[in-house]
Amino acid sequence: MRKLRLMTPGPTMVPPEVTAEMVGPMDHHRTPGHRQILKEITEGLQYVFQTQGACFALTGSGTSGMEAAIVGVCNPGGKALVLRNGKFSERWGKICATFGISCTTADLEWGCGFTPSIVESRLNADPAINTVILTHSETSTAAASDLEGIAAITRNRDVLLVVDGITSVGALPVRMDAWGVDVMVTGSQKAMMCPPGMAFVAVSERAWGRIDSFKSPAFYNCLKAYRKSLTDYDSPYTPAITLMMGARRALHMIREEGMEAIWARTARLARATRAAAAAMGLKVFARDPSDSLTALLLPEGLDEPAFRKRLRTDYGIVVAGGQDQLKGRVIRLNHMGYVDEMDTLAALTAIELTLHKMGRKVELGAGPSAAMEIFAAA
Amino acid sequence: MRKLRLMTPGPTMVPPEVTAEMVGPMDHHRTPGHRQILKEITEGLQYVFQTQGACFALTGSGTSGMEAAIVGVCNPGGKALVLRNGKFSERWGKICATFGISCTTADLEWGCGFTPSIVESRLNADPAINTVILTHSETSTAAASDLEGIAAITRNRDVLLVVDGITSVGALPVRMDAWGVDVMVTGSQKAMMCPPGMAFVAVSERAWGRIDSFKSPAFYNCLKAYRKSLTDYDSPYTPAITLMMGARRALHMIREEGMEAIWARTARLARATRAAAAAMGLKVFARDPSDSLTALLLPEGLDEPAFRKRLRTDYGIVVAGGQDQLKGRVIRLNHMGYVDEMDTLAALTAIELTLHKMGRKVELGAGPSAAMEIFAAA
Repeated sequence: MRKLRLMTPGPTMVPPEVTAEMVGPMDHHRTPGHRQILKEITEGLQYVFQTQGACFALTGSGTSGMEAAIVGVCNPGGKALVLRNGKFSERWGKICATFGISCTTADLEWGCGFTPSIVESRLNADPAINTVILTHSETSTAAASDLEGIAAITRNRDVLLVVDGITSVGALPVRMDAWGVDVMVTGSQKAMMCPPGMAFVAVSERAWGRIDSFKSPAFYNCLKAYRKSLTDYDSPYTPAITLMMGARRALHMIREEGMEAIWARTARLARATRAAAAAMGLKVFARDPSDSLTALLLPEGLDEPAFRKRLRTDYGIVVAGGQDQLKGRVIRLNHMGYVDEMDTLAALTAIELTLHKMGRKVELGAGPSAAMEIFAAA
Repeated sequence: MRKLRLMTPGPTMVPPEVTAEMVGPMDHHRTPGHRQILKEITEGLQYVFQTQGACFALTGSGTSGMEAAIVGVCNPGGKALVLRNGKFSERWGKICATFGISCTTADLEWGCGFTPSIVESRLNADPAINTVILTHSETSTAAASDLEGIAAITRNRDVLLVVDGITSVGALPVRMDAWGVDVMVTGSQKAMMCPPGMAFVAVSERAWGRIDSFKSPAFYNCLKAYRKSLTDYDSPYTPAITLMMGARRALHMIREEGMEAIWARTARLARATRAAAAAMGLKVFARDPSDSLTALLLPEGLDEPAFRKRLRTDYGIVVAGGQDQLKGRVIRLNHMGYVDEMDTLAALTAIELTLHKMGRKVELGAGPSAAMEIFAAA
């Protein structure tokens, strides 16, 4: 027997309640029943994004939502500032380049988060910038940026703020309307507790002003097409019906737990993980750690593929490795969605046991005990 | 109790074997297990498309595959000929327009299929055309075009043939390599027996020559990105893992039954439906009917929404209505994928009973009997 515990920062674990929904009788998507599903999803997304604005479920990976945001918002003649501090924020720049969107970048070392002052000085220096693109939580480095502070800069200017919330929405505090965020994107397979295959996008009233001001080269990933269909709770193309059946249930579960409670749980698991890591002698990679996932630097010389393989085969714990410049140097653990104290303890315990088995000096129980201290104090 | 029988031409019924796969333990997508799933899907698609060329599973609706084909293949400076005979072939023209691709159209009345001679004369008249875009089976009208004959024209010229096979691949005879089709697209929710959420695209060697000759404005729906990832059985962005788990099983089921047997079954169900319709006094809308679905003209004056509602509430039979100019005039019945003689008989019987209940003169049993004659002769 080997129980798989998916501790990767996406896909994350899916609740059995959500899985059960997805195997119920599937109906056609142009029926009152399916329109009701999409209505409840829309309302659920408004709750999670904390917005009264339009929210959409796109049929695609999170990247389809990123493309829809960029192509929809970045007008010809405008200029985007891409804030880059990891692999996923770099992707925004690549999307802009593909679509011939004029852009400039601000670069931080991997592991650091952006602060309002960097954004403010860049906007002051270059008044041509009319869109700022931020990755709230950088999944590749597990670093978080100050979204609220950055939105406070952009909201008072004629500058739109487009945010990759793929590992933040539903996990880190996000108050889209209160903070003045314009467009925000997430994927179904992160804090939303669904399998991958949908991107969720929220759009502010202010952003529609820009989107409606020009003709964008968007067909499949087109926000205007989604808005038009949504007036009748419909989708422009055949949606991923079974995934939507699951998403409705997941969004109801999120509402039942409550956003503040979920944010607190996510932060608690992150704190426990950081405390346990310190007790095991492992360093957190990010200088500005995100609470939605943690990247732990492995001890010098440890065979990373072998380490992850043993975690999986000996204890069923699946974690992610590093990407690009972090390949082989870190493992990444998820705190989003359907993951609790005991899952986190299991992962931390398996890490400690595997370090021990691979000849590293650890005091057995030190990591889990440190995590327990955090849980006990909650 | 009300059993729903999904007789719509997409989404179609999903076999319980496929549903069962999708609820098994979900693993991360960058693992040997998931690479094996993608390998088997790729091989299964090659069998269904009857090609040795590259086959991809895109995360998106069928339309994402159409966009990937157009943006990937239609080079700036080239000219596309869009063969239009219904709502979905019109969509190809809209995609071309969105991306600024120069194109011309050939238009046939709805319900008619394209023949090689139309294509040949258009190509002779305009040597600038280097791409022909055909909808093999027009889902809106249930009409089929002569794909083999049209490919015989394009394959001997420097003209690529891009085909919407959304309601043809896996249902109508398609031999991509033998016939010389360049790019072909289908969706997961038709003959492939899966829920919606994936597009399947097959690309010939000849098409890659064009695709590699220019830089296309494609990011999310990018064939080159899919090709690069597939060398390692990976996807460019997080794929719809659970849907892929189902697709692997569905493709194995298709292989077990055999493509020729499936084509024959599909054609048999279509013949039975047409025979039953004639016996009930209903006309087939298409002049050139497709065997993958049938559009039946409703009797003059029949309240179409009420008719479809009664089919559903009284007998659990879900059929599609008409679109655009056919709205309120036809119902459309599926013959693709996981649908058999008894499902078809149920639908035909419910149609006859409902016509009777709504005061139309029918001889009870005439339609089903005519269908049974076809089945008995098989």
